[in-house]
Amino acid sequence: MREPDGRRARGQRTRASILASAVDLASVEGLEGLTIGRLATSLEMSKSGLFAHFGSKEELQLEVIQAAREIFVERIVEPTRAIERGLPRLRALLDAKLDYLRGGVFRGGCFFDAARAEFDSRPPGPVRAAVEQQMVDWSELMTKLVAAAQREGHIDPDLEPAQLAFELDSYYSAANVAFQFHGDPAIFDRAHQAATQRLESAAVKPSAPVRTSRR
Amino acid sequence: MREPDGRRARGQRTRASILASAVDLASVEGLEGLTIGRLATSLEMSKSGLFAHFGSKEELQLEVIQAAREIFVERIVEPTRAIERGLPRLRALLDAKLDYLRGGVFRGGCFFDAARAEFDSRPPGPVRAAVEQQMVDWSELMTKLVAAAQREGHIDPDLEPAQLAFELDSYYSAANVAFQFHGDPAIFDRAHQAATQRLESAAVKPSAPVRTSRR
Repeated sequence: MREPDGRRARGQRTRASILASAVDLASVEGLEGLTIGRLATSLEMSKSGLFAHFGSKEELQLEVIQAAREIFVERIVEPTRAIERGLPRLRALLDAKLDYLRGGVFRGGCFFDAARAEFDSRPPGPVRAAVEQQMVDWSELMTKLVAAAQREGHIDPDLEPAQLAFELDSYYSAANVAFQFHGDPAIFDRAHQAATQRLESAAVKPSAPVRTSRR
Repeated sequence: MREPDGRRARGQRTRASILASAVDLASVEGLEGLTIGRLATSLEMSKSGLFAHFGSKEELQLEVIQAAREIFVERIVEPTRAIERGLPRLRALLDAKLDYLRGGVFRGGCFFDAARAEFDSRPPGPVRAAVEQQMVDWSELMTKLVAAAQREGHIDPDLEPAQLAFELDSYYSAANVAFQFHGDPAIFDRAHQAATQRLESAAVKPSAPVRTSRR
């Protein structure tokens, strides 16, 4: 170790706070516009100071994706672990996602949908792969929560978990695409209504009161 | 009129064939990459020859959007007019859209989703407005077809047509976003299954056989 501990800790705090600003900036202006120069201007830091933290634009982008993921997990996913398992937890995750899409977490709304729209037509590369991985992880989390709600007896066990997860997520992703265009948050109410309806039709109905005198 | 008629007609044919190629190119490379220079290379025409048809990149982009719309209407919308009104026509439109998303019409798949992903983070302008108009028109067409299926007694009249149209379209739009990333067309089967399930749950159930001896 060449640096005293205090200096290293300060460096890590600086790095974390740079990354938080970078995620916010990228949620508005896009990941591709996130150059070390642009970030330096926004943070009023020197480009050489930033270069010391991130060697290249690509490294910066990859770290920003990782930082966005950590914030997403902490703010959207973690709090749902306190909620009752099964349908209540799935609903809580969808509600948290909705608040997130409305801009409750990052200034520009959904960091990942923005990155996705930006990178889907780009050639393969580490940044595109990292964006795709976030999409895959989100689908898997939703699928896991649907399967858990089936195990709890809350959701029809005949449904394919990945299919229902896809349907629920479709509403939010389509609403966000429309919102990015016209800026009218009423579209998120449509998504919420759609997900609520879909979950109701997927739910195991409380069994009808047992008739004791059937004949 | 300064030109003889034959020359004008030839000019219009050339223009239409340039636009068809430009739509195809833009469906793959994006509307923003569609410069007069790029198109000239692709068509092996001179830049000055293209400038005679389109005065600017913006004019070219606007005409390409209009040309894509005309092809879309001709290939996806028009054929459904021959199908029985109501649910059959709505299903036919969804099937045609699916074939279109799979790349059955434009080389790069959905021209409009590609343009949408490209322009949603851009500042307002005529090209962005034209892209948005296509989204609005598509939603309105879907909504109209849902309402028609309600009038025919095929779909539950209590549902809000725009809400159901939003839900159906969400599946296709989310599938296309995923497909643009991972290229696995199996995701379109999920969208098809989702729409089929949603239409079944929205359909007016054939009334149960009337019991003549109820008591």
